[in-house]
Amino acid sequence: MKSCGSPEHSLKGQERMHTYPEAVVIEEQGLRDGIQNERVILPTGLKLEIIDQLVAAGLTHLQVASFVHPRAVPQMADAAELCAGLKPAAGVAYSTLVLNAKGMERALDAGLRWVEVSLSASDAHSRANVNQSLALARSRMAQMVRRGKDAGLRLRGSVQCAFGCRLQGRVAPDLVLDMVAEQLSLGVDEIKLADSTGMAHPGAVQELCGRVREAAAGKPVWLHLHDTEGKGLVNVLAALQVGVRHFDTSFGGLGGCPFIRGASGNIATEDFAVMLHQMGIATGIDVAQVAAVSRRLEQFLGKSLAGKIHRLARRDDIELFSEPADSP
Amino acid sequence: MKSCGSPEHSLKGQERMHTYPEAVVIEEQGLRDGIQNERVILPTGLKLEIIDQLVAAGLTHLQVASFVHPRAVPQMADAAELCAGLKPAAGVAYSTLVLNAKGMERALDAGLRWVEVSLSASDAHSRANVNQSLALARSRMAQMVRRGKDAGLRLRGSVQCAFGCRLQGRVAPDLVLDMVAEQLSLGVDEIKLADSTGMAHPGAVQELCGRVREAAAGKPVWLHLHDTEGKGLVNVLAALQVGVRHFDTSFGGLGGCPFIRGASGNIATEDFAVMLHQMGIATGIDVAQVAAVSRRLEQFLGKSLAGKIHRLARRDDIELFSEPADSP
Repeated sequence: MKSCGSPEHSLKGQERMHTYPEAVVIEEQGLRDGIQNERVILPTGLKLEIIDQLVAAGLTHLQVASFVHPRAVPQMADAAELCAGLKPAAGVAYSTLVLNAKGMERALDAGLRWVEVSLSASDAHSRANVNQSLALARSRMAQMVRRGKDAGLRLRGSVQCAFGCRLQGRVAPDLVLDMVAEQLSLGVDEIKLADSTGMAHPGAVQELCGRVREAAAGKPVWLHLHDTEGKGLVNVLAALQVGVRHFDTSFGGLGGCPFIRGASGNIATEDFAVMLHQMGIATGIDVAQVAAVSRRLEQFLGKSLAGKIHRLARRDDIELFSEPADSP
Repeated sequence: MKSCGSPEHSLKGQERMHTYPEAVVIEEQGLRDGIQNERVILPTGLKLEIIDQLVAAGLTHLQVASFVHPRAVPQMADAAELCAGLKPAAGVAYSTLVLNAKGMERALDAGLRWVEVSLSASDAHSRANVNQSLALARSRMAQMVRRGKDAGLRLRGSVQCAFGCRLQGRVAPDLVLDMVAEQLSLGVDEIKLADSTGMAHPGAVQELCGRVREAAAGKPVWLHLHDTEGKGLVNVLAALQVGVRHFDTSFGGLGGCPFIRGASGNIATEDFAVMLHQMGIATGIDVAQVAAVSRRLEQFLGKSLAGKIHRLARRDDIELFSEPADSP
């Protein structure tokens, strides 16, 4: 993991309104959230090749599968086989996502150490997504977290629809805070807030992330953003300004929840990295190499992905975009 | 024009890091920058209908044409006829763009009071776009501005490629500042910085806009952003944080410069407005009505526009997105 305790810096020449970090941490979500909604099933071998390419491009955190019912998400039916095929790499953490006790057992069997345990803050979304009321899903969380901790996993507790839900509308920040506090009291090692619907805006991001970071008391707080309304990167800036240093992205801007209309597109890894590099913030990744993966998947899927930077085929274009403004 | 001297407010519940305005001013660029690159020529009657719809949707500033050579930009060949057909409306300002002395004479003949006089800060772009070196274009600016002022026009001086150029690469902020100072000394009433290539990032926006606002000493400073790299809205936030209150947008995210590869898409009026409304900042426009115009043009052009919000056909979806987070 890139150090996030490294010295911070302000942008050169700018009023000293903000302190930005020297580096941030990305978890690549393309092969989990990114493709889960795609009808064309990726062969396990292709997924493993893509993972190798992403690791070669400098990604150190990758969510590679979810242990969900294969009928609900056929794209994830090969999760165990995929995990068995992963090549260990120094400094690289592969994670999986689980939504219920059965998923947790399958994740334990698969042997990866990093597991994300996820709930939705929207009752309507919880019923649509996992066929459980929010209350029931919360009551089952404790058992899952205990099981994972007993097995020595590194656990991330995450809250979906943290900034609103298209099925239900508003989601109260106090409810999200309460769910976060509950997960922390159960002993999760990290927290994630997911804007599953792309409804977050800078004001909401700064308010909620500020409060959650305070509650997390030094534990990493991840932010998972969708670009549904075009606000993916503006919410990144808002989050950076209140101290968030951990972000989910998907190569090419893949992604979306099958149960929420219009919820397409995680923020694109390449677009995110270019902006941060221009601002002098390191991500540790080679944008041109990630873009090559995105173009490869575009060919395989036979469609354009929603990100912007990967469409620039020429490496010198990408390098031009990535130059920090204050470099010579 | 919406008052921009109105009381300012901080976002509720947020650390008081920023002061945001109660309202901003939009100049709708869809029928100028938006369509100039489209091969399908819009009939003048359709343009006039769209302008009426946009005014009905609350837009108070609209750039409706440029006086450029019809062979270079066939879409603008009807500029004089269009101007003659505009319906005067209380509180509504129609503007045109000119790039040279001949364009200025045509604009004067057309009789509109608001004229934007524009130069590129990139020598390479200036040569490609208007077949003049930057030095020559600058030397001819003085004459154009004097002619416009003598005729009683309200003049906006604008600098294209203010944040970089794909043909040339870096553009020095000091050069942009020098060009702005020259335009101000010639007596323009307003200044505009155009990120013609979408290369701006939050750090560059805050540095350059901060310096230009200081030089402008109270005269309006407009920002014209493209979403080429997905940074349109994040640059809006950065600009708001250093006091910019005037923004160009295009309905549906239309736009782009024909001479710069990949330079597609102004920021979308609807996406911009939804974000600002969510943050409690007024734009004075009805997003659903603007979105209807975008969908109408999508049908006419037979292609999707790059914006996000206009794709949501249902008014209640748009209203859900537009609710400020702190409303009941």
